[in-house]
Amino acid sequence: MLYIFLLALLFLSISSLSHGSVQDFCVADYTAPVGPAGYSCKKPAGVTVDDFVYTGLGVPGDTSNLIKAAVTPAFDTQFPGVNGLGISIARLDLAVDGVIPLHIHPGASEVLVVVEGTICAGFISAAANVVYLKTLNKGDVMVFPQGLLHFQVNGGESTSIAFVSFSSANPGLQIVDFALFANDFPSELVEKTTFLDDAQVKKLKGVLGGTG
Amino acid sequence: MLYIFLLALLFLSISSLSHGSVQDFCVADYTAPVGPAGYSCKKPAGVTVDDFVYTGLGVPGDTSNLIKAAVTPAFDTQFPGVNGLGISIARLDLAVDGVIPLHIHPGASEVLVVVEGTICAGFISAAANVVYLKTLNKGDVMVFPQGLLHFQVNGGESTSIAFVSFSSANPGLQIVDFALFANDFPSELVEKTTFLDDAQVKKLKGVLGGTG
Amino acid sequence: MLYIFLLALLFLSISSLSHGSVQDFCVADYTAPVGPAGYSCKKPAGVTVDDFVYTGLGVPGDTSNLIKAAVTPAFDTQFPGVNGLGISIARLDLAVDGVIPLHIHPGASEVLVVVEGTICAGFISAAANVVYLKTLNKGDVMVFPQGLLHFQVNGGESTSIAFVSFSSANPGLQIVDFALFANDFPSELVEKTTFLDDAQVKKLKGVLGGTG
Amino acid sequence: MLYIFLLALLFLSISSLSHGSVQDFCVADYTAPVGPAGYSCKKPAGVTVDDFVYTGLGVPGDTSNLIKAAVTPAFDTQFPGVNGLGISIARLDLAVDGVIPLHIHPGASEVLVVVEGTICAGFISAAANVVYLKTLNKGDVMVFPQGLLHFQVNGGESTSIAFVSFSSANPGLQIVDFALFANDFPSELVEKTTFLDDAQVKKLKGVLGGTG
Amino acid sequence: MLYIFLLALLFLSISSLSHGSVQDFCVADYTAPVGPAGYSCKKPAGVTVDDFVYTGLGVPGDTSNLIKAAVTPAFDTQFPGVNGLGISIARLDLAVDGVIPLHIHPGASEVLVVVEGTICAGFISAAANVVYLKTLNKGDVMVFPQGLLHFQVNGGESTSIAFVSFSSANPGLQIVDFALFANDFPSELVEKTTFLDDAQVKKLKGVLGGTG
Amino acid sequence: MLYIFLLALLFLSISSLSHGSVQDFCVADYTAPVGPAGYSCKKPAGVTVDDFVYTGLGVPGDTSNLIKAAVTPAFDTQFPGVNGLGISIARLDLAVDGVIPLHIHPGASEVLVVVEGTICAGFISAAANVVYLKTLNKGDVMVFPQGLLHFQVNGGESTSIAFVSFSSANPGLQIVDFALFANDFPSELVEKTTFLDDAQVKKLKGVLGGTG
Repeated sequence: MLYIFLLALLFLSISSLSHGSVQDFCVADYTAPVGPAGYSCKKPAGVTVDDFVYTGLGVPGDTSNLIKAAVTPAFDTQFPGVNGLGISIARLDLAVDGVIPLHIHPGASEVLVVVEGTICAGFISAAANVVYLKTLNKGDVMVFPQGLLHFQVNGGESTSIAFVSFSSANPGLQIVDFALFANDFPSELVEKTTFLDDAQVKKLKGVLGGTG
Repeated sequence: MLYIFLLALLFLSISSLSHGSVQDFCVADYTAPVGPAGYSCKKPAGVTVDDFVYTGLGVPGDTSNLIKAAVTPAFDTQFPGVNGLGISIARLDLAVDGVIPLHIHPGASEVLVVVEGTICAGFISAAANVVYLKTLNKGDVMVFPQGLLHFQVNGGESTSIAFVSFSSANPGLQIVDFALFANDFPSELVEKTTFLDDAQVKKLKGVLGGTG
Repeated sequence: MLYIFLLALLFLSISSLSHGSVQDFCVADYTAPVGPAGYSCKKPAGVTVDDFVYTGLGVPGDTSNLIKAAVTPAFDTQFPGVNGLGISIARLDLAVDGVIPLHIHPGASEVLVVVEGTICAGFISAAANVVYLKTLNKGDVMVFPQGLLHFQVNGGESTSIAFVSFSSANPGLQIVDFALFANDFPSELVEKTTFLDDAQVKKLKGVLGGTG
Repeated sequence: MLYIFLLALLFLSISSLSHGSVQDFCVADYTAPVGPAGYSCKKPAGVTVDDFVYTGLGVPGDTSNLIKAAVTPAFDTQFPGVNGLGISIARLDLAVDGVIPLHIHPGASEVLVVVEGTICAGFISAAANVVYLKTLNKGDVMVFPQGLLHFQVNGGESTSIAFVSFSSANPGLQIVDFALFANDFPSELVEKTTFLDDAQVKKLKGVLGGTG
Repeated sequence: MLYIFLLALLFLSISSLSHGSVQDFCVADYTAPVGPAGYSCKKPAGVTVDDFVYTGLGVPGDTSNLIKAAVTPAFDTQFPGVNGLGISIARLDLAVDGVIPLHIHPGASEVLVVVEGTICAGFISAAANVVYLKTLNKGDVMVFPQGLLHFQVNGGESTSIAFVSFSSANPGLQIVDFALFANDFPSELVEKTTFLDDAQVKKLKGVLGGTG
Repeated sequence: MLYIFLLALLFLSISSLSHGSVQDFCVADYTAPVGPAGYSCKKPAGVTVDDFVYTGLGVPGDTSNLIKAAVTPAFDTQFPGVNGLGISIARLDLAVDGVIPLHIHPGASEVLVVVEGTICAGFISAAANVVYLKTLNKGDVMVFPQGLLHFQVNGGESTSIAFVSFSSANPGLQIVDFALFANDFPSELVEKTTFLDDAQVKKLKGVLGGTG
């Protein structure tokens, strides 16, 4: 038993003086300040395994909406264990004819893996303005480079499910249609900066609740 | 003169063994392989001050086009000295009624400073879908966070000029209209992922040269 | 049609001068030099959508081995499209009683999502030496912070499948048993640095093919 | 109008659970703790467009001083919107014979663009100890790699103005003369570590207010 | 003396508006929140030179323990001045027959320099599973790449001392034996994920104080 | 022996397809292109333990020069194993009255540990222009934040030795005196940008071999 005592000495000399050290991880403390690198860290004593586990992706998202699709995120905002670790995940559910509209993630690249059904996915490159399109089957993987416009569409006759991972705990999500037609972006400016017709802009604002 | 000799010894002991060291900068060598961090570095012996100077922004861009505007970049592709340094710059020229259409930079935040005229600029946030709009006068600065949709419009009665700097030597530029209407993105998919009408899509493809 | 011509001028002024720009992505060119940030980039003209799609995870890994498990990676070494993007993915197959032995990824955090069966997973923190254990069901997600020892075990009566994503295109994989017993690490040093008994070391070297 | 309701569901499923998410930007909250990555973020509800706009660079700096020059910064300390975004900007005013003395930015590379007059600028490389000098005219751009000694001098017969951008929201600024002669750096140590004569050191301490 | 006044104007225009700017360093404030990038910064007015100096490595660690060795860290947890700077240091003391057991640093690469005695050190690569072993004498340096298993053993007849530096202010330290045998990691799972025999596991748990 | 075969299958499925993967380290290949992130990587098959060991710091630097001091670096240029790992080391030798003149490392923070003698060290902060000075004894550690002017002076009656580690494999070294007086920096510009007298500049140019 002397051994235990003596080894403990080594261990203590290494870890004892820590002022709330968080060297292994930084579980989000949603009650403390947020900074450019993420949420503040929960004190280690309060961390449990459930901070590292997220069970919200086990149930299908609700696809009874216009786009017949749902995005269920497990970003740092929902999943405290990924805070500061440069990774996160989300679940996509696409009913038949479902679509995740054209969008970007301002802060991350994305890897998608199909776990059910068939998905037609694509992105557009910026430098050469090339459209990269592919129909993906179960088990297929596609990568969408950071910040580029992309989309996913159910390409088959049955529900599709995919998991999408991101190179950030906080990838962000900007859907082009929401940015243009679901807020108070003045129609005149929308039209001027997109060349869309006034009627088109007003129609989609009507659908998406935009004003201005 | 002994001093020179002796000090030279110190200096040599520090720098002599270098195998083409590039510790200060990495001027782009456009003939060598490119990697995720940028272009390969020119051998130091071939570097001159002109690699660090770019004179292409001294002349107005040609605004005799549909958008009455021009973007003249000094990114690592044009300006070898910024390679690997995490910064670059471009010039915006906007004739009266000129517009830089809605676009994103996938890899950088942007700071704009107006040096002539008046510019109305804006961006849309992703998390809260808020439109941030401002009319900027000479000397005013605006920041556009990385990866978010934004635009610039000449807000006055005369030509406007601005310089825009980026937090990357290679920020990229993706104009929404070009991504949708100036390539072979199938119209059916454009419509499905943007909710735009078929007539609108085809009209803009006509203007911008898109097919499919 | 004048429009096309005029707009094309804008577009050209932006993208024409590029010396093989890779601003959107950097698909791995396996024939060119590798650097600390990853593989060199394929020339854009040679890039196709298949560089961004990986189909190797659609088939089960072969679990007819000692550990009744398989890891099938889609890292930058196999999947050129993720090169430089800070993300990658792999598939885990665990037959009944299958186990992914204790291991670390030196260069990435990991997010695991169960897509079939039940997995008992765990990791050990460094600062406080706490074991975080959880039994995960279909759809559950767990995060393993970078560089920490962790493992996955089939916790049920049927085959389990999971996808694991990494915050690096090249996370690495170091299985403790392989590092100790499947190479020429001298037994005397293994014993001295792990406190394992000589008989134990030699037995496992026998199983795993180690020498010394 | 059902559409609005249904789409709103998607939008809510994406953004509703956020605990004050700041995924798009992190406007500085000067009343909260600061960390290595920058200031804490203002709560999104309190952010306005004015956080992203800085108007302080529209007026000339006061050049009625010894160096006949002024540096007016828009760093994260003055301009909350750039916090965490890896970019910032400043304005240089140089009256005739004005000079920005030899200095370094410890945390950023710099890109300078001349908007009025003529500026003679230079930097010294570390590895090869080469002086890179250039006379820059209106519209010319020069890059100064991170951490290297550099300077700007009015090279003409009239006032010069430039904007300088940085690859950090907080580049820092260390003017060699201020570091040596404008604080309590003991003269003996200044002389020992720079080889400057005692008389020279004391003279400049007199000018710049140094003691010791 | 007008000079002082005038120059002071320049200096003030640069630094006066700072809201507690920390542009040069971020000395740890152990009483404020911690984030993914490290501790919050002490207010500059409270910083003294002693925050940048650590005297705890001047005395030998206590090697009167089982492993006849000691690790004395100067990480951000002990040494506030390194917070956020991406570097830290520790002292190794190895009595005759002393050993730093097989371990990893999850967050950093390490450089070791021997300052007294002889040390036999090694690490195991992940990709190729190669053991790199070397006997190091006074003044010799060895680098251990991030996240890989490694160890140090006194290779001589007298006490050895080394300093080890890390590419992080918070490298972490995970000793394999402690992770397996000095906590409540269930023996059944230890055995299943390491192939070690039950007797071996229980023996080492006895020595190191593990339960389960 | 079946075990070996079966386990080998797992191992192969993980590592076999590698196209010269470098996931663990990137030993510098001095014959291949260099990029912003460092040297290209040697092919793994050619890597030996000696790439990770540097023996050049075991011998004292030659201090028979003007400054009675020597800096012996083990940066990526000399020590291929640290390439891309964000760390490096150097040895300082200071004879009695020896001095490492005022200098900066453009790309790294530094940690110094005294292993023999006494060293008086200091740095000057940029934001507040404060001089931080300390006399360090054997075993004492001091950190110098990135990019700030600093120096080391032998503070005792006997030779001093220190090891300095850096948060970069390629920290760079710019000695103020060399930058000003040991190249062709025109004296007129030196004087204009430093306020030094012409006689002082010419005197030091004479000592250090500068022209212009």
